[in-house]
Amino acid sequence: MEGGTKESKSVTVLHGATIITMDEQKRVFKNGAIVIEQDRIKAIGQSHHILPQFSHLSDHYHLIDLTGHILLPGLINTHVHTSQQLGRGIADDVDLMTWLHHRIWPYESNMSEHDSYLSTLLCGIELIRSGVTCFAEAGGQHISGMAKAIELLGLRACLAQSTMDSGHGLPASWAARTTQECLQSQKDNYEKYHNTAQGRIRVWFGIRQIMNSTERLLLDTRDAARQLKTGIHMHVAEIPYENQLVMDVHKVNHGTVTYLEKIDFLQNNLLAAHSVWVDNNEISLLSRAGVKVSHCPAAAMRMLGFAPVREMLDAGISVSLGTDGAPSNNRMSIVDEMYLASLINKGREVYANGTTDPTALPAETILKMATVNGAKSVLWDDELGSLEVGKKADIVVVNPSSWSMVPVHDCISSIVYCMRTENVDSVMCNGVWIMKNKKLINVDEEEVILKAKQASYELLKRAGITLPTRMNVI
Amino acid sequence: MEGGTKESKSVTVLHGATIITMDEQKRVFKNGAIVIEQDRIKAIGQSHHILPQFSHLSDHYHLIDLTGHILLPGLINTHVHTSQQLGRGIADDVDLMTWLHHRIWPYESNMSEHDSYLSTLLCGIELIRSGVTCFAEAGGQHISGMAKAIELLGLRACLAQSTMDSGHGLPASWAARTTQECLQSQKDNYEKYHNTAQGRIRVWFGIRQIMNSTERLLLDTRDAARQLKTGIHMHVAEIPYENQLVMDVHKVNHGTVTYLEKIDFLQNNLLAAHSVWVDNNEISLLSRAGVKVSHCPAAAMRMLGFAPVREMLDAGISVSLGTDGAPSNNRMSIVDEMYLASLINKGREVYANGTTDPTALPAETILKMATVNGAKSVLWDDELGSLEVGKKADIVVVNPSSWSMVPVHDCISSIVYCMRTENVDSVMCNGVWIMKNKKLINVDEEEVILKAKQASYELLKRAGITLPTRMNVI
Repeated sequence: MEGGTKESKSVTVLHGATIITMDEQKRVFKNGAIVIEQDRIKAIGQSHHILPQFSHLSDHYHLIDLTGHILLPGLINTHVHTSQQLGRGIADDVDLMTWLHHRIWPYESNMSEHDSYLSTLLCGIELIRSGVTCFAEAGGQHISGMAKAIELLGLRACLAQSTMDSGHGLPASWAARTTQECLQSQKDNYEKYHNTAQGRIRVWFGIRQIMNSTERLLLDTRDAARQLKTGIHMHVAEIPYENQLVMDVHKVNHGTVTYLEKIDFLQNNLLAAHSVWVDNNEISLLSRAGVKVSHCPAAAMRMLGFAPVREMLDAGISVSLGTDGAPSNNRMSIVDEMYLASLINKGREVYANGTTDPTALPAETILKMATVNGAKSVLWDDELGSLEVGKKADIVVVNPSSWSMVPVHDCISSIVYCMRTENVDSVMCNGVWIMKNKKLINVDEEEVILKAKQASYELLKRAGITLPTRMNVI
Repeated sequence: MEGGTKESKSVTVLHGATIITMDEQKRVFKNGAIVIEQDRIKAIGQSHHILPQFSHLSDHYHLIDLTGHILLPGLINTHVHTSQQLGRGIADDVDLMTWLHHRIWPYESNMSEHDSYLSTLLCGIELIRSGVTCFAEAGGQHISGMAKAIELLGLRACLAQSTMDSGHGLPASWAARTTQECLQSQKDNYEKYHNTAQGRIRVWFGIRQIMNSTERLLLDTRDAARQLKTGIHMHVAEIPYENQLVMDVHKVNHGTVTYLEKIDFLQNNLLAAHSVWVDNNEISLLSRAGVKVSHCPAAAMRMLGFAPVREMLDAGISVSLGTDGAPSNNRMSIVDEMYLASLINKGREVYANGTTDPTALPAETILKMATVNGAKSVLWDDELGSLEVGKKADIVVVNPSSWSMVPVHDCISSIVYCMRTENVDSVMCNGVWIMKNKKLINVDEEEVILKAKQASYELLKRAGITLPTRMNVI
């Protein structure tokens, strides 16, 4: 036991709750307690074991009774475009080319650093309200703006810059970037922001997608990431057209994954988003290389297709969950994504095998994807993904006693199938409450909403994006 | 203009809001007003047109400024098992036979009238909180209990009793019911509850499904419903096994729909739930007969498969949206169901045609399904489904200025793709507020939750239902 002085500074004990630890023994404490010292978990177990150990500190620590609540490890969203939050609703019900060339690229290429900051703030509020404590940015516009927002919100993130050094139809300001510039700006970001915000921010390398990458960019990114011991975030095998193009250009017998294997790009620090159009051989390639996959069920249904999630999990791939960006989803809630992942992958069995399978991807698997697999996917499982002694105190407090969850007969399935953002009561990240009793702690939510609205309208105007009306507006 | 005395009793004017009328001209008033007298809409239009007409009544009417809000017609949930709410979470991740024989039937056959009452109260709270003002009960246990709850909640409903007069594996208390008893009890319910609760309750005939119905039950139900000018609610073509059984027993060349057509059961007062496994010819049969279809995307994904929704809509069938029951979904939110319907039917194009189609079932179509088509499906479109002069005042007030919807560039798509239950601020049914500023008006929510929890645990005990644990609970 350490000295009382240090402990008195920042020891918090949460007790009386159902604690779903997600540890390897799959322990759930019915009446559990968890002791948080500074940013880490110091003890966890049954309340009647834990409380007496800390009773001598009664004057010096925060004792919080959470009877009737459920505690979870902070959820991890492994694919989110925080820079796209101001573009929510700008590309609904349009075909892919309209989506990319006439909405998303004009929007993104017109963003200022301040837009990225506001967009990440707004997105961060939604992430926190859906129980997320850590996310992987899919590739945004201004790392400086994102980092400033993350620092303020109190969240944990692996930030990456949207990076493209080739491809058709790019906005002029992007088309001019050389491969070298693309790499250098990411190295600069790493230098400046990696391991900042009390260690909550890590900087990764971003590659937008194969159709906007030279082989040089891919290989140099691989080497730079390896050297800096960080990750690479990339959209992989999103649509059949992508695979076809790769087959035509690179003369491989299937798509992007086969080509990436050929050039020795597949590594265990690669987080591949979507990976919808992969065949069995490519699943083996991903598995062998230790590549992580972020499954984004809503975006997949809307734009891409059915990822072979069950097969990838069976092959031992760490498949986690992501929301994608607001113009692709439009809900940025990993809570909804858990619900969707289960439904869609049960239904997918009709497509794959002719009949639904209500037993496919059961609740415990889905919860693992959003926690343990999420942590592995962001290369941070030594400190995140489960509630265990020594790990970071990233915790979600759920209140299940509401109309949306009652009755709770099976708390694991209730978390996955019934819980909504309404039930997310409080969120702790790095040992600090970032939402308490549904109130965001570090930002003025109304002010962010007001400023984000304004910035969004101005950005659309600047980018020349107008939306057709669907009805007879008077 | 009618006399002031009558108007002063109950005239409410909501103004300053964006009003999505869903009328035939697809009018959306950007700064609209709606005048409600007693239970009906007296006037609707732009605020600056409407307000002066009623200014002479300024002392006698309720003027409510809803600037910044969006008004919608009350949403209609056309397939919901209110009696199953206490069974939420009792049958997750299990195969269909376990679901039916070991969980749902034991649960339902052990329900008391009071259980049905509490279950409907709890479900009703969730319906109201998701913007529903009217629903079609899919076939519950005790109409008396349901009616009592609906009367109290202030909702509108077409109630139906779960009716089965044959089939394998039925609980003993159900197996003994004769066809005649099945019909008579429904006629008694009609006599007792139809058009009660200020006209908010209608009683329909229920038929559980083809595998639990004799031909006699089907034909007598058809005739009785026709005579009483009411509807029939039935699960139709849910799984391939059902179709196969019908082909074997009744010697028809496809499934349930083909057989129902053969015996002249398909009528325009039939609300067919799910209708997943129907071929093109059967879609034509449904369309020609004017049969309505309730599409329940979550339940379909989990248990049934992909309904040909686009094809049914193209064939002119009134396809609406339902949540199904809590053990099949488990979210009883038509708000979530709108989001799902769009996503799943875009994704379904991969299954049907090899590629997703992000333009399939656009937001305006989905919103029509939840309003106009819902009203047609419950045979109540003369008074419900759109905000028009003379129709019932069933209205949802949405607050879009929150983290979950901002920014709103396209209010139709924002309602469908971004809105969550959090954004449903107030709900009016039959001219009366049943939720105001997120507070239920007619029930004590905490008391219902407490009683429902208790009743649910006792019911499971009585029914002998135990659930396996998924993790290591300590």
